Amino acid sequence: MSHEILIVTERELKSTLHLGRGMNNLVEKAFAALASGNVIMPPIMSMDLPAVNAEVDVKAAFIPGFDHFAIKVSPGFFDNPKLGLPSLNGLMMLLSAKTGMASAVFLDNGYLTDLRTAAAGGVVARHMAPKNVETAGVIGTGVQARLQIIAAHFERPFKKVLVWGRNKDHAEACAKDIAYEIDVEAHAVDSAEQVVKESQLLITTTPSREPLIDADWMHPDLHITAMGSDQEGKNELDPEIVAQADIYVCDRVSQCEKLGELRTALETGNWPTDKTPAELGEIIAGTKPNRTTDASITICDLTGTGAQDTAIANHAFELAHNLDFGTMIKTD
Amino acid sequence: MSHEILIVTERELKSTLHLGRGMNNLVEKAFAALASGNVIMPPIMSMDLPAVNAEVDVKAAFIPGFDHFAIKVSPGFFDNPKLGLPSLNGLMMLLSAKTGMASAVFLDNGYLTDLRTAAAGGVVARHMAPKNVETAGVIGTGVQARLQIIAAHFERPFKKVLVWGRNKDHAEACAKDIAYEIDVEAHAVDSAEQVVKESQLLITTTPSREPLIDADWMHPDLHITAMGSDQEGKNELDPEIVAQADIYVCDRVSQCEKLGELRTALETGNWPTDKTPAELGEIIAGTKPNRTTDASITICDLTGTGAQDTAIANHAFELAHNLDFGTMIKTD
Repeated sequence: MSHEILIVTERELKSTLHLGRGMNNLVEKAFAALASGNVIMPPIMSMDLPAVNAEVDVKAAFIPGFDHFAIKVSPGFFDNPKLGLPSLNGLMMLLSAKTGMASAVFLDNGYLTDLRTAAAGGVVARHMAPKNVETAGVIGTGVQARLQIIAAHFERPFKKVLVWGRNKDHAEACAKDIAYEIDVEAHAVDSAEQVVKESQLLITTTPSREPLIDADWMHPDLHITAMGSDQEGKNELDPEIVAQADIYVCDRVSQCEKLGELRTALETGNWPTDKTPAELGEIIAGTKPNRTTDASITICDLTGTGAQDTAIANHAFELAHNLDFGTMIKTD
Repeated sequence: MSHEILIVTERELKSTLHLGRGMNNLVEKAFAALASGNVIMPPIMSMDLPAVNAEVDVKAAFIPGFDHFAIKVSPGFFDNPKLGLPSLNGLMMLLSAKTGMASAVFLDNGYLTDLRTAAAGGVVARHMAPKNVETAGVIGTGVQARLQIIAAHFERPFKKVLVWGRNKDHAEACAKDIAYEIDVEAHAVDSAEQVVKESQLLITTTPSREPLIDADWMHPDLHITAMGSDQEGKNELDPEIVAQADIYVCDRVSQCEKLGELRTALETGNWPTDKTPAELGEIIAGTKPNRTTDASITICDLTGTGAQDTAIANHAFELAHNLDFGTMIKTD
């Protein structure tokens, strides 16, 4: 029997898939499925390649009810910028949930990951941010700094954005892009402290290995989405913040305890080892306590899950079929 | 910067890559590298999907000195034959060892896995089989039963092959194919016992979960390559055989103790928990004891390694370049 596989490129995906309420809904569905307990999501396969200053992660998740499941390869080669290449990259495979046969390969160079990561932040803003967010703050000035703000703005139409990064030029460029994209007032400011103190929604997006956010800067009426730490050794928040927050939530506990802010909180005694945090899917399902008033301080720790990849890859495959893009390759 | 990725199909690979001394050399090189200790090979990522009677394995290995590293997805969907589809399938990605950018995707439907698995058996025959093999025996009647015999025949030009499988018709078809392929006398016989007793080289290739080979059938002048067990719960050899053998070798100890014959041997006390078996790469390098006379009984336990995938995928990529096959896709 002849077997055909659809090849879809980054260019094709960029011209058809975008952030929006729909993308947030899609990723929300993935997290709700995760909380149902029926998703098969193996631990991340991680290859540390110190000899080339690189790391490769492989993520996968099988979600009942989706026609296909995704397996995603995410390489990070941190000397690439010296060669004029991006550090992050990758591709995704989509396999039939019924036969395991490959249905599609997305040569997306990490674009689907960018979208589903930002949309997770959008879902978190939907469920956990104070109802009224006047000012959103972002720490970091890269791709996710921009996309996280865009995805969150669909859920909380804030009027003002503050950006801080170690490089002021980068922060100004980021603020300018955000101002253009969502048509709000956006500024680069001189300190992370100012961003935190003036924001009701804070998003941290850096690869920092030392806390950038001080526990002394906390204030009522604040939600923090910490999405920078996704590897052992990374840490953006003073771990006391995790202890002090009214509500602390993980995208996936088994990942956050190794790769997220939870790791440092556990190591420093700021989270009791015998207490299991809530997961985002449980907050969506309403089965675990969420913020009760705008005055609460809440945190969501995002490390990125294979369930998000499976959700976005299924959607991209459907879209390719409906809009007739991609190249069909006969394999045998 | 524009990024292009080469897409290569099963059809293209089948018309250019074959078993032979060269393929055995290539896989030998992968095992030698593994023994050097410089290979980064993470544990197999395994997804058990009982709801669809399936399992998906992901393997990967970074071998210094190779231009690229492979990540391979191997789905096994065991209800596929009811749909007229093969149970086993898969595809391979090849990433640059310098930048992590995807260089190629092999839509091989498992063909490269078939080759590199058989070639491992060829390498084992080269290093561990008695010098004079008159008769080779094979247990099982599938693709690997045929390919293992072909790969081993390049190393030990035996004159006769005996085949046993639960289904006599399948065994006869397998013997006929082998007789045609390598131009030897080949017969299907009525018992596994006869195969074992009359062979100097025995290859077991089944997915059995109960021992098929009895310890009472052992005799001097025998090498066994057990390549069927590659998942928890599989087991082809009476575990006493492992205890009785003069030399027992794993492709990778950390895999065999979970997935190979070693698992049962450990569970039944037929291998001491405090003794580490030799690995095939160490036998190739000559750093661990091998058979000393033709009279010895030796075993090699193969579970399949990412290092083999990286070796064959690098070779296939080079070949595609030299022979100008595959489809180059511009991704961005």
